[in-house]
Parts: sequence; C-alpha cells; structure tokens
Amino acid sequence: MRKVAIVGVGLTKFGESWHRGFREMITEAGIRALADANMPGSDIDALYGGTMAAGRLIGQEHITALIADSMGLNPIPATRVEAACASGSVAMRAGYMAVASGIHDQVVVGGVEKMTDVSTGEVTSALGGAGDQEWELFMGATFPSLYALMARRHMHDYGTTEEQMAHAAVKNHYNAARNKYAQYQKEITLDTVMKSKVISSPLKMFDCSPITDGAAAAVLVPLEKARKYTDTPIEIVASAQASDTLSLHSRESLTRLNAAIEASKKAYGQAKLKPSDIDVAEVHDCFTIAELIAIEDLGFCKKGEGGKMTEQGETALNSKISVNTSGGLKGCGHPVGATGVKQIAEIVWQLRGEAEKRQVKKADIGLTHNVGGSGATCVVHILKRGD
Amino acid sequence: MRKVAIVGVGLTKFGESWHRGFREMITEAGIRALADANMPGSDIDALYGGTMAAGRLIGQEHITALIADSMGLNPIPATRVEAACASGSVAMRAGYMAVASGIHDQVVVGGVEKMTDVSTGEVTSALGGAGDQEWELFMGATFPSLYALMARRHMHDYGTTEEQMAHAAVKNHYNAARNKYAQYQKEITLDTVMKSKVISSPLKMFDCSPITDGAAAAVLVPLEKARKYTDTPIEIVASAQASDTLSLHSRESLTRLNAAIEASKKAYGQAKLKPSDIDVAEVHDCFTIAELIAIEDLGFCKKGEGGKMTEQGETALNSKISVNTSGGLKGCGHPVGATGVKQIAEIVWQLRGEAEKRQVKKADIGLTHNVGGSGATCVVHILKRGD
Repeated sequence: MRKVAIVGVGLTKFGESWHRGFREMITEAGIRALADANMPGSDIDALYGGTMAAGRLIGQEHITALIADSMGLNPIPATRVEAACASGSVAMRAGYMAVASGIHDQVVVGGVEKMTDVSTGEVTSALGGAGDQEWELFMGATFPSLYALMARRHMHDYGTTEEQMAHAAVKNHYNAARNKYAQYQKEITLDTVMKSKVISSPLKMFDCSPITDGAAAAVLVPLEKARKYTDTPIEIVASAQASDTLSLHSRESLTRLNAAIEASKKAYGQAKLKPSDIDVAEVHDCFTIAELIAIEDLGFCKKGEGGKMTEQGETALNSKISVNTSGGLKGCGHPVGATGVKQIAEIVWQLRGEAEKRQVKKADIGLTHNVGGSGATCVVHILKRGD
Repeated sequence: MRKVAIVGVGLTKFGESWHRGFREMITEAGIRALADANMPGSDIDALYGGTMAAGRLIGQEHITALIADSMGLNPIPATRVEAACASGSVAMRAGYMAVASGIHDQVVVGGVEKMTDVSTGEVTSALGGAGDQEWELFMGATFPSLYALMARRHMHDYGTTEEQMAHAAVKNHYNAARNKYAQYQKEITLDTVMKSKVISSPLKMFDCSPITDGAAAAVLVPLEKARKYTDTPIEIVASAQASDTLSLHSRESLTRLNAAIEASKKAYGQAKLKPSDIDVAEVHDCFTIAELIAIEDLGFCKKGEGGKMTEQGETALNSKISVNTSGGLKGCGHPVGATGVKQIAEIVWQLRGEAEKRQVKKADIGLTHNVGGSGATCVVHILKRGD
C-alpha cells in the first residue's frame, strides 16, 4: 500500500447559514481545498462525501453526484459514505483507502450538513436516527438524554462533577474565539455553563454542541506525489475504524466507548505511536461528557480521570495535550457530516503552523477522534508532517 | 492489487414484507450469504452496506452499525455507502476496493431497503431525492415523469414504440416467474402492459418497477483464498463507476446515460472484454425505457436499436444475450439499496449454474449495470468464474 498525504483543506464558516444552501457550502469548501492544494479540478480522480441526514434535512439523497455536478467534476466516481456523526471521517477513510490502494491518485473528500432548513424538533428526530431508532428514539431517548445517562454514570463511578464537564465547554469556547471559522466567537465562563438551562440533567445548554450548517473538504494524494502540490504535505499515518452496538442499553459499560478504544488501539499500532506522542487532538465533544470520555478512551489520561485532567487545564491550548483547538463540536459547531473532515483540516493547519491565534507551539503529531451516534462507530486518524 | 472473488451470496424474498423489518431482512440475507460461503461471522473483517433512504423511510441512519450489531459482527468497521438506486453497487465496489487493496481480507457487502412502512406518496418523495430535489422534485418532476421524458425523446429520435418497451416488461415477468425470490411470480402479456393505467405518458403501470422490501448480501475474499470457502469462486474482473449531472435538464442528450457509457468503457477495459463477450447481464430497468437505453449504452446493440433488439427477443433467456434473468427491477422488484447486490447475486448463480428454471445454458461471463437516479451515477461490474 502507498503512503497517503493531505495536500489541501478548506472550510466554510460554520454557523447558521441562512443565505446559502447545501450545494453552495460544499462547493465553497471544495474549491477552497483545491485552491489550497494548487490543484485544478481536472486532476481529481474520485470524490467521497460524508453527510448524515440530507434526506431528512433537505430532501436530497445522492449527494456526492450533486457535489461532483456542482463542482464540475463529472464523470469521476462520486460516492457518499455515512456513519451518522462520523460520516466525515468514514469519507476520509474511504478516500485514504482509494489512494493507498493505488485505485485512485488524486481524491477529494468532502463533509457537509445543512441543518437549519427544518425545525429544531425535526433536527432532533433526524439526529435520533444516529442511535437505535426503534429501541431508543421511539421510546423518547434523544441524544442529549443518552449522553446524560453516560454523564450520570461517570459521575457515579468516578466522582466526576458538573463543574469538571463545564470546564471542557469553557476551554472549547476559548479556542473557538480564536478560530475565524467557528460558530461561536465568544469566550464563556464556568458560570455561563453552570447557570445555563438544563437540557437533560446533568447536561445543560452549554454542555451541548449546537445545530450548525457547514462544509469541509480535503485533497488526498500519494505521499510520493505530494511535493508537486505543496511544500508541507501532511501524512496520514493511521486510519482506523470500529463499531459497537447501536443502542446504549446493549453495552457492558456506559462510561467508555469500546469502538473508540478499539479504533485508537489499531491507529496507535498502525502509526507505531503511543498516546503521549500526540501533541494536538480533535475529539468528538458532542456533549462535554463525551470529551471527558474521549480523552480517557484515547489513553491521554487514566480511566475516570477525564474530569480531573480537564479541570486542571491539561487539555488547554499548549498544555499537556492541546485538545479541540478548533473549538471542537461545542465551540466551532457541529454540522454532523462535516465534523470529521473539519477535524482533519484543523490538525493539518496545526501541523503546518497555520492555526493563527490558536497555534500550538509544538505540533508534530495530531489525532482526530470522530464518533457516530452514542459510540456505535468511531474513526481515529493520526497525522504527521510528511518527510 | 489483489484479485477479488465472491464466495457467497444471499437474498431475502423480495416483495411487500409486512411481517419483517429492516434489520430482520438484512440479517437474513447476511446470514444466508455467510452460510453460502461456509464462513463463520468471526472471519469477517469489514462490512459495507448500501441503502438509499433509510432516514426517510424508517427514520434510521447509521444503518451499517445497526447491521454489524444485529449480525453480531462488532467491533469490525461498518460503513454505509449511498448513491441512490446504485447504493448496492457502490457498496460492492467499496468492498471490492477494501479486499483488492489488501486492507481487509473477508468482507461482507449488504444492500437493503424497507419501503412499505410509509405511504406511496412519501416513497415517491423520498425517491425524488435521487434526482435534483431543488430543480426537479420541487418542480413536480417525479421519477416516472423524468423517465417518461427520456422515453418520449427516444421515440422521437429512433422511432421506438410503446410496444417495444412493453416487450421488456413481458420478458422480465417471464424470468421473474422462474425466480423464487422475485416479487412477481406471474407471466404477463403485451396486452397487460399496453392496457395498464398511464402513470406518466408514455409510461404505463407495467412499464414501471414496483415499490419493494428486500435485502441482499455477498461475501468477498481475495481470489487466492477463495477455494478455502467454495469450489466455485466467482471473480470480479471489473468494477467501474462514473457520474453525470444530477438533473436531466443539464444533459446534452436524454437518450443515453453518459455515466453508463463511461463506466462500461472502463469496465470492459479493466476486464479486457468486449460487449459481445457478455453472456448474461443484469441491467437497471427501473422503467422499461431504461432497459432499452441500458443495452444501447452497454454496447449490446447499436444506438437507437434497443427497442428493436428487445422486440425481436434478442435479450430473452438463452437468446443473443440473456438480460435480466432475475426478472430485473420490473419483475423481481426494486428495493433500491438492495438492487445492486441482488444483481450480483443473480450473476453469481448464473455463472455457478445454480439459477434453476432460468439458468442460461452458456454463462461464462456476466455483467451488472446499476443506475442511481436518472443516471447521475452508474456502476458496472463484470464477473467470471474463477480459475
């Protein structure tokens, strides 16, 4: 298999995008990624796109055919991949496999979601399709309530506090305020989180990631060809994916995601790296408790110490490990299909030294952790600067 | 790259499946495919699943996590791919790439759609998402009307008649009556088609494929390992995919599918074969006109002669080329996400000599042609008996 490098990335501004639709957003992100790669569209051999619920949210399936059409890339193969909120990362992994295998040379990967064209109730229902619709959503378990169960159990088993969770939100807003693409550009205090409205106890408004429109794209090529396009190729040194039961009630534990543990173990093995080698990580903080569990599952701290590590500032910018420098799902926003590709873009910028006000001083190796549903899918990528 | 073989296939009975849901159907097909391959589930390294509109039709996204869970395959990577009615074939192609690349060894590919849990109007709306929702469906152009435009133009340009189209339906019902998995088990006459209710002129009820529940699965392994599982491995000698504009109005011609021409050219090139080498083909007859255009696009006859070839019986069982021996989408049924995998299963059975009452006498090389929407995606696979 060939080594694979990322030579271009592009994002739209994340937020409530009333003035632009699905196709405008993904086309903008795609064009930015191609421009970043100094690559004409005619060089692209294949397209992979991640979106979770375009059928429910905009009435449109077949979205990569739409993207290829809108970007003028016909007749290349254009394939949508989906794994709920991990759709962007499974698209990345599909693109990685297409290039690694030698089947395609230049591949563009996109992730996109247009979430604000329907009511909040409809979005909540569509997102419920990431879990077990028959056994969870139909019974009234929306995503905030599923993650609230995980939070309660984590508090019970490890003494994790609401304040510790709130610290993840404060940190991620701090980072988002330094990211021009982020949905929220304002810092918040612990008080903001603790006094915000209860959504599903113990999770409050500021423990939850928002509903977001946005798109992200990346251009992948064989590492050996990368210098043709850029002086700073970023190599994908690991791409791993794992699955778990769709419904939370079937799991043996509520306080860890087996798919995340499995995928990260495989990824560390592929990259021949260990958790302490990672300088910067984008993890899936759909709720603050999810970030605490993520840093435990990824081995950045011991089991049960995610709350303490967060509270002590060891995941802040330029601390022990800089987590969610983009602002994460909480601060940067969470257009579900775009998130996995946005995580990749952020790590690429960090490793290139292009992350502006939120640049991590030592950023040699970065990791992304993207979760589908309540953990039935997890995808982990590890990136480093190409030699 | 490694050669890839199919060592097991399985289908559910296609039809209106009131007594079973989405997860029961795909699990049944998957278990049948594994049993056919004499393979325990624990041998499977990865799962790819094709479904078009589970979000709209059953409120469930993240369907391959569901399938992996339901089949007891956690924690393997489980990825949904989608390209409207070509979703089954893009899943096959993803599975093919995973094995060919050496990234995975034993891969199961599934295709499934549960369409009868919602009203016909809702199905029509969901299927409209295979075309350009903003420019076609929103303006009232449902799929029968899009294909009616193609039929009218084909009649205008080439003198194709309604009777010629009807012959495709008669042939496909004849074949379906010999396929125990088919939705329709009855032969029909030309009169049945010609006197059936007009849906979108010139297309009548019996020119249209039905709404169907069903699932299909296939097991892929490297050819070099195939004899461990079966005495009759079927090799995938070509896997090609292409895209075209999403909306019909953007095309330069209404009477051909550029994506089908492009994908089949690539496939013939990969397999080092020509159209006349194909003994048996499953083509995408979502409407009878689509079969006429398909046999032209695939080079089985000259441009414009699809009607004549069909009328003269040259696509019937054991004629010049046996087309849609399963009954096609028209006779066997069209559970959209399952269709591409069902086409593969039918060709596998034909090449193994296991197609019972519809067995083609000389079946050495087979082809599948699976179309998404009105032609924005086309996937072509060519199969032959493994050496």
